[in-house]
Formats: sequence, structure tokens, C-alpha cells
Amino acid sequence: MRVLVPFDATDPKSRLAPVLDPDERRAFATAMLEDVLAAIRETGHDPLVASTEPIEVDASLRVDDRPLDPLIDDAIEGEAPLAVVMADLALATPAALEDLFETAGDVVAAPGRQAGTNALVVRDGSFRVDYHGASFRDHRERANNEGLDFATVDSFRLSTDVDDPRDLLEVLVHGSGRATAWLREAGFAVAVIDGEPRARR
Amino acid sequence: MRVLVPFDATDPKSRLAPVLDPDERRAFATAMLEDVLAAIRETGHDPLVASTEPIEVDASLRVDDRPLDPLIDDAIEGEAPLAVVMADLALATPAALEDLFETAGDVVAAPGRQAGTNALVVRDGSFRVDYHGASFRDHRERANNEGLDFATVDSFRLSTDVDDPRDLLEVLVHGSGRATAWLREAGFAVAVIDGEPRARR
Repeated sequence: MRVLVPFDATDPKSRLAPVLDPDERRAFATAMLEDVLAAIRETGHDPLVASTEPIEVDASLRVDDRPLDPLIDDAIEGEAPLAVVMADLALATPAALEDLFETAGDVVAAPGRQAGTNALVVRDGSFRVDYHGASFRDHRERANNEGLDFATVDSFRLSTDVDDPRDLLEVLVHGSGRATAWLREAGFAVAVIDGEPRARR
Repeated sequence: MRVLVPFDATDPKSRLAPVLDPDERRAFATAMLEDVLAAIRETGHDPLVASTEPIEVDASLRVDDRPLDPLIDDAIEGEAPLAVVMADLALATPAALEDLFETAGDVVAAPGRQAGTNALVVRDGSFRVDYHGASFRDHRERANNEGLDFATVDSFRLSTDVDDPRDLLEVLVHGSGRATAWLREAGFAVAVIDGEPRARR
């Protein structure tokens, strides 16, 4: 199965701006992308990066600067069955992705926190995505409204997308790949401040 | 296996104070506790509630107002193998708990977000817990330092403890038990505000 990995190469991980400068955000986002691609490859599936700008990456690359929804909808229409995996799932493991890829259903989703959809398998070419707002709820409703079987996978690792500074703690505590190594080399470590664990430089 | 469920009946879910008054917090915390107990019972295991004050609950009850660590350590020493499941895992399912209970290891942990430990199985009576700070990291380190096998279960549902107002969104979107029903009856619904999903009254 083709696994589409959308990547924002233009202004990656903008919500990490309070703790990482633009070059650092680019390097960290690339490290996470490489971790995701490595995990996908270990499942035996074929990743395709859809990047907003040309990048150097050891995978098939499609440059497409359209918003997420039309980009993914076109891929579903032309290439279903198709998986879509977000590029910032720094904790993704081959086991968690295999669970996603092997779960039966016309639409199979791995929920992200705060009602997001972090990974998706679409086996029906008529399905259309909506990644804005409460996307998990909306994808479930759309599938139900269209009579498509909707299934979920229950994975902490796939639920963890790395968007804001608090998420760096998850990468430090639970990660073991390039993104975790990058953070450590950049000087980040776990600190407990007023009883609350935090990723701090 | 005995499954200990610690419950703060004195000032439950204090971080929800911005959106729920004290009576509401007590009612919502009790609904979550009942969901957790029902999920545990469906696995065939035997829940024991350790409450800081006497409460009415359809389960074995131990009233103990000590802090979490000595309370749990005593139970491990006397009753291992023992599971410890937090009372605010409103999304816990029998399947996710079964995965936890059946995973081999001297110490098996279900990570919570922000380096927490939301559920734990301890099969070695010498293990001691530390629920403060980065407890997942600390439990892993302690197990490793003592030569105990440490394993994890990968579950979004078990990773979701309900502590602060943002967490109510998870209960609304992914829940189906008493806690979700309570929130809906209290007037909470999913609203998308400036593109961000939120639980709002």
C-alpha cells in the first residue's frame, strides 16, 4: 500500500518557534520525517513524501504546495487503498503502523490528541478528508454518513504528534530515533519544575 | 489479579475548577471512576478502590488518605502481582486493559501524556513507585536499576487521563460511558473556535 506523508518544508513546525529558531525547526522536522519514513519502510510499505517544496529525502518525492485536503483527496481518488501518515509522529513504531495498516475497514484512523487524525487508511476511493477542526470526529461522521466501515487503532505512539513545546517532552521520554537524538544534541533534557516534567534546554 | 484504583474523594479533579464547580467535579470524577471500574470488571479482574474518604461505590473499598506512593507501595509489598489503574482514565476499554494485564514483565506500564504513568502492573513485590514528576521515566529507570523486566503497552485510551479542561474534549469525542454522558447532560459539546476544537458549555 502506498503511504503518503505530507511534509511542510516551507515553514515547518511553526508552533515550536518559541523554543527553536527556523533552521532548528527545519532540522528537527526533517529528523522526525526520517523517523516516520524508516518506521513505514520497516512495515514493508512504500512511503511517498508530498512536500510543499523540493527537499532531499531518501524516499519517493512529490512536490505539491496545495493545502492538505485537496492534496490528500486527489491521492485517495487516484490511488486508494492509500495510507496517510503525518510527518511529525516522532514516536511511530513499525508495530503501531502495522496495526494501522492491517486493521480492516473502509476508513481506519489513528486518533491524535485534541480530536486530530494522525494517521489514516482509506480503502474506498470516494472518501474525502477534512483535516481542519475536530478532524477525527468529522472523518468518523463522514464515513458513517456514507455507509463506510470506520475503524480505529488505539496507539499512544500514533496519537502523539509533535506540534508545540510541551510535545518535546514526549520525544525525549519515549523516543529512540533521529528526532530524539537531535533534541539531545541541541541541549534538550527532561527537567522537573514545580513538580511538572518539561523539556528544557 | 487485584486492581487498585486510587480515588481522591476529598478534592477531586481540582484542575477542572475553571469549568466545573466542586459538586460537579465530584459527580464527574465519580462517573469516570465507575467507567474505569466497569472496564476492569469486564476483563474478569477484581477492582479495589482506595479512596481518601468513604464513598458509595459498587466495588471493594479501602479508605486510606495517605499520599499515592506509600499507599501503592504497601499494596505492592503485600499483594503483588498487583495492577494500579488511575480513576480518571475515562476512555479505558476492556481491550486496552486486557492488553495491559496480559503483557509479560515484572513491571508493565501504560504511559500517560507528559511522562505520566496511567496504569501499571507490578509482579515483583520489591518494586517501589514514584508518581511525582516524570513518573514514567522514573519507573522505567527504577525497574532497570533493579534488574526487573520493564514493558509498556501502547494505548491512546490508557494514555488519556482527564486532568484539565482541554481533556474534556477527549471524553466527548472518544468516550461512550457514564463520564461522556455526564458531560453532555451538563451541557458540554465540541465547538471549533478559531480552527481549534474545544469542549464548551
